[in-house]
Amino acid sequence: MKIKVGIVGATGYTGEELIKTLQYHPYVELSFATSNSHTGKKLSELFPSLSKWRNLSLIESKPESIGDVDVVFLCLPAGESFKFAKYAISQNIKVIDLGPDFRFLNPSNYQIWYNTEHTLPELLEKTAYGLPEFFRDKIKNAQIIANPGCYPTSILLGTLPLLIENVIEADYIISDSKSGMTGAGKTPLQRTHFVSANENINLYSPGRSHRHVGEIEEKLFLLTGKNTKVLFNPQTVPVNRGILSTTYCKLKENTDKNIVYNIYEHYYGNEPFVRLAKDFYPDLHIVQNTNYCYIHILQPESTQFLVIVSVIDNLGKGASKQAIQNFNIMFDLEETTCLI
Amino acid sequence: MKIKVGIVGATGYTGEELIKTLQYHPYVELSFATSNSHTGKKLSELFPSLSKWRNLSLIESKPESIGDVDVVFLCLPAGESFKFAKYAISQNIKVIDLGPDFRFLNPSNYQIWYNTEHTLPELLEKTAYGLPEFFRDKIKNAQIIANPGCYPTSILLGTLPLLIENVIEADYIISDSKSGMTGAGKTPLQRTHFVSANENINLYSPGRSHRHVGEIEEKLFLLTGKNTKVLFNPQTVPVNRGILSTTYCKLKENTDKNIVYNIYEHYYGNEPFVRLAKDFYPDLHIVQNTNYCYIHILQPESTQFLVIVSVIDNLGKGASKQAIQNFNIMFDLEETTCLI
Amino acid sequence: MKIKVGIVGATGYTGEELIKTLQYHPYVELSFATSNSHTGKKLSELFPSLSKWRNLSLIESKPESIGDVDVVFLCLPAGESFKFAKYAISQNIKVIDLGPDFRFLNPSNYQIWYNTEHTLPELLEKTAYGLPEFFRDKIKNAQIIANPGCYPTSILLGTLPLLIENVIEADYIISDSKSGMTGAGKTPLQRTHFVSANENINLYSPGRSHRHVGEIEEKLFLLTGKNTKVLFNPQTVPVNRGILSTTYCKLKENTDKNIVYNIYEHYYGNEPFVRLAKDFYPDLHIVQNTNYCYIHILQPESTQFLVIVSVIDNLGKGASKQAIQNFNIMFDLEETTCLI
Amino acid sequence: MKIKVGIVGATGYTGEELIKTLQYHPYVELSFATSNSHTGKKLSELFPSLSKWRNLSLIESKPESIGDVDVVFLCLPAGESFKFAKYAISQNIKVIDLGPDFRFLNPSNYQIWYNTEHTLPELLEKTAYGLPEFFRDKIKNAQIIANPGCYPTSILLGTLPLLIENVIEADYIISDSKSGMTGAGKTPLQRTHFVSANENINLYSPGRSHRHVGEIEEKLFLLTGKNTKVLFNPQTVPVNRGILSTTYCKLKENTDKNIVYNIYEHYYGNEPFVRLAKDFYPDLHIVQNTNYCYIHILQPESTQFLVIVSVIDNLGKGASKQAIQNFNIMFDLEETTCLI
Repeated sequence: MKIKVGIVGATGYTGEELIKTLQYHPYVELSFATSNSHTGKKLSELFPSLSKWRNLSLIESKPESIGDVDVVFLCLPAGESFKFAKYAISQNIKVIDLGPDFRFLNPSNYQIWYNTEHTLPELLEKTAYGLPEFFRDKIKNAQIIANPGCYPTSILLGTLPLLIENVIEADYIISDSKSGMTGAGKTPLQRTHFVSANENINLYSPGRSHRHVGEIEEKLFLLTGKNTKVLFNPQTVPVNRGILSTTYCKLKENTDKNIVYNIYEHYYGNEPFVRLAKDFYPDLHIVQNTNYCYIHILQPESTQFLVIVSVIDNLGKGASKQAIQNFNIMFDLEETTCLI
Repeated sequence: MKIKVGIVGATGYTGEELIKTLQYHPYVELSFATSNSHTGKKLSELFPSLSKWRNLSLIESKPESIGDVDVVFLCLPAGESFKFAKYAISQNIKVIDLGPDFRFLNPSNYQIWYNTEHTLPELLEKTAYGLPEFFRDKIKNAQIIANPGCYPTSILLGTLPLLIENVIEADYIISDSKSGMTGAGKTPLQRTHFVSANENINLYSPGRSHRHVGEIEEKLFLLTGKNTKVLFNPQTVPVNRGILSTTYCKLKENTDKNIVYNIYEHYYGNEPFVRLAKDFYPDLHIVQNTNYCYIHILQPESTQFLVIVSVIDNLGKGASKQAIQNFNIMFDLEETTCLI
Repeated sequence: MKIKVGIVGATGYTGEELIKTLQYHPYVELSFATSNSHTGKKLSELFPSLSKWRNLSLIESKPESIGDVDVVFLCLPAGESFKFAKYAISQNIKVIDLGPDFRFLNPSNYQIWYNTEHTLPELLEKTAYGLPEFFRDKIKNAQIIANPGCYPTSILLGTLPLLIENVIEADYIISDSKSGMTGAGKTPLQRTHFVSANENINLYSPGRSHRHVGEIEEKLFLLTGKNTKVLFNPQTVPVNRGILSTTYCKLKENTDKNIVYNIYEHYYGNEPFVRLAKDFYPDLHIVQNTNYCYIHILQPESTQFLVIVSVIDNLGKGASKQAIQNFNIMFDLEETTCLI
Repeated sequence: MKIKVGIVGATGYTGEELIKTLQYHPYVELSFATSNSHTGKKLSELFPSLSKWRNLSLIESKPESIGDVDVVFLCLPAGESFKFAKYAISQNIKVIDLGPDFRFLNPSNYQIWYNTEHTLPELLEKTAYGLPEFFRDKIKNAQIIANPGCYPTSILLGTLPLLIENVIEADYIISDSKSGMTGAGKTPLQRTHFVSANENINLYSPGRSHRHVGEIEEKLFLLTGKNTKVLFNPQTVPVNRGILSTTYCKLKENTDKNIVYNIYEHYYGNEPFVRLAKDFYPDLHIVQNTNYCYIHILQPESTQFLVIVSVIDNLGKGASKQAIQNFNIMFDLEETTCLI
């Protein structure tokens, strides 16, 4: 028994990662894949070393292309998922959206951060935010999964348990995040030119200006009831894949690093994809091409600060592999299928 | 006494390198610089660490922008130098063209390789091919300098003395060349995207299809009277600057590596920018940000093959610094001024 | 039913790649892994994202460590496999050697190229050279597999069919090969320091001095009866994984590129891991982390030269994944198991 | 009139940068250079593209090698400068020490952070901390210059004016710093191997464990009288040169970003090497190979946080070029000589 899957926007980095991972999924049949820039080409022309689905031809990206499938993955920029999601839901097809359009529970937050009207607020109650460690039950029963942003995944996994358990100050957190260049998207721009990015570090959208700030703040509020301000400085570094987020927060009195590890163990002890790096500093190599998040913490000597170092692959746990984790939950499969 | 200089196309990689090098030239005054993409901006906005000419504003790229100067450097794509050169010459302004439009002595060769009509064949007799090691006298008296292509510079310096002195077979040479990504130009394209080029090697225009084949073959014929076929395989590697060309040719009978070194010493012993690497394999590091070409040769054991390894910086001896060397010759200055 | 496997030298790059790939092999049980530099550590300490065998502790590298297994993979430097192979064979344990000690059929060739006596010539008749495309039958029945060198794999796959079918001149071939830095080994040296290799290209052991010349020449002779001289220039480029070999040879009269493609199709049409790139230039990205070899050919216009561009992952088809392909053949399993 | 200069430890990254920069200094004569790993070699063997001093032979690194010079630059690891400095001072030779041995005013701080006894406390009163923007007068008259650490330079330039002027809270600052790999030293180690560092980010000595914490804290105390705790997380990224430090601090009430810029302009308006990047985010490219520090600040919306982004070249303003700036001050030369 196969689950029939479609992918809209299959030739960007997240679409490619989805296809290359799903080919090893024993229960998935890829029924269609769309691309406006490569319509008509076979998948093997774009991804020569693909093992399965080599002869599948890319079709045009339009809602009606979503044919007879059980679920469709949407890999589209902001504002472009609405019409596809609407059509899919109308056909009783589940949606896993890797873009941002359904990530906000509150549509007016979406409007503020994306400067675009949310045209489908009525679907938000059928939507789950696809961070399984905190929303697994909702994911099981949702019709739409809003797959989290890459930076938010790395930061929320580090901070949520601590804010929920009330061991860090809730007024603000500071997150200094470094991302590989696949995080900047596939469109050729001056700043994504090899010569611009190589031998360089580039800060962008710092402070509270990056859209992921809104996503993180809403989720923190949702789960803790507190308004936590997120100071967020994203920087690209000259690597292809991976995010390392260093998050600075303040431990409450009578709390320390050991209590934090206990909380993490409580929250993540049974989680297949979140691991504590107690004895080493996690780097990008250990998470590249995986769905893992590794977390290390430190409490600088004679301070009440807590530094949380969390690493993920921005295309793994930060996008496509987490989407597959959500898919597995949604279809009641072993959650780690094709991910370990 | 200053020589007044203008630069057309100042914000590409070769224009930038020109400005950054010329600021240390004691006899140069930069009178104007043009850019269509950045008209109106000050040089300091584009090149923040510039020491001189910080407040010079970029003007529009059009022939009439070439004002009251002694010489103009043209940093333009194929086919775009003609009208600027024509205007400059009409104003008695010398031209150093870093583009390909005047590199062919024979305008029909230009037409064949660039698929564009050569509109100024009458200027070719006032033009020198700016490879000082072989055309110094012509450069002194020319009104137009056709600054050589980057790959041709690396290959001609290695092979010309040997073909002139008749110690290698003249029917063909094979050159396997690797270039940094500044060689691919500043325009953002899918193939110049960081993620495409990083962790990769990309062959392009192989065999006898790259335009530089025509440039090399004409110069070989010009100086030797022989029709030598050039097999040329350019490949980009994930570095910013530098070219390493490995050229394979066949030694004539009774000739060997030592004779070749003697010939090189004869030709280059007094040259300030061509050096023999007798005891080590030259790499990109030793030429980056310089105007040097280093040449190493080897004769594989029990063969009559000769392998010539030549390295340059594609923006140095392969473009802007060689242009300044030509400028120094043209204006009767110490040839190494601001280059060593 | 599981096949019990051991790995000697498990913490170098080839050992790591073996373990990470074999964990997805449905018929493999890893019984032991050795390492002198990390004896006593668990695999999960070295490879945190490993899914299987996390608690297996590394044991000392000595012949007697080879316990109750069906096959042992040896990942050792030149000269160090002999004693392990001898012990394994004495225990009726099969050997897949990723090092060079058994790659020469003729032990005196080994001595010439490795400057070390071959201490086990009597085992060479039980040995197969593990290039399945040419030695599959021998591999099936061998007790020792000499897994080919990385460069030889890329060059032999391109040239062997053409020399066997007599369509290229046999006197010499020229191969200009570029390799990622894992090819230089894991030992920290000045030349493997990040700052030395980054933004650089490094030629080493050029001409006919690299040991892989001997390996290639012996195999060419073995299968064609001709003495072909190999000119080989290896160069490292700043990427982690991958080899791109550009091989230059001369087509015989009345032969052309199309005939060559036909020959390749005859030889490789049913091969699972050798693919022809007819319509595109293969790059490193398409082979990284795979067992594929892609081959593209071109015949430069109006010449009888043939340029063969072959790409592999030096740790994939160039080492560990090819070793697993050999393992699959040896144990009569589907040849592509855990490799596609 | 030339100033005679010697360099002890000339073949590490800082020694190399010193020589390559000083060759353009019109008043410098290099009298000797020492190296234990390359004793007897000529400078041209190590640095082939050097213009001056090519035939100078490296001599042994021992105090008595410090001959007839006016000043000696010491490029040595912790604990190794003492005996050289002692000898030089005894000969009335000035010292510019690029290592850490004289950076602490208080020798017991040195002992705490370097776990080594300070054997020359009596020389500390003749020593100036070589951050010209704050200690120019002392530098003019010192006999020993303790050239600042690379990270401290980037962090102190951003924070000192604000702490002195009392516009940020003094209890702590958080600095998240990213450095290129030359910052990790030239010794080949597993973590400096290309394959380890490439496609990676590596956190090391985080919290309050890096020795530069002590250096920064002492200087902050010295100039402000306040005990400010420095939380410091250094990370290496896969580039050769450059540091980007993101420093997080809290603005006092009634203070804002504009006041901060005014303070910077007061402090740095006449400084030749510290520049404010008001309208752009500084990156590594603008400081590589220069002595500049660029500073950008931001105050995240609706917060009293201040984020200071400061960039330098770790071998430029972070080491050798700042040493030359100090040299120029010490010898009463134009401060920018050979640096702009």
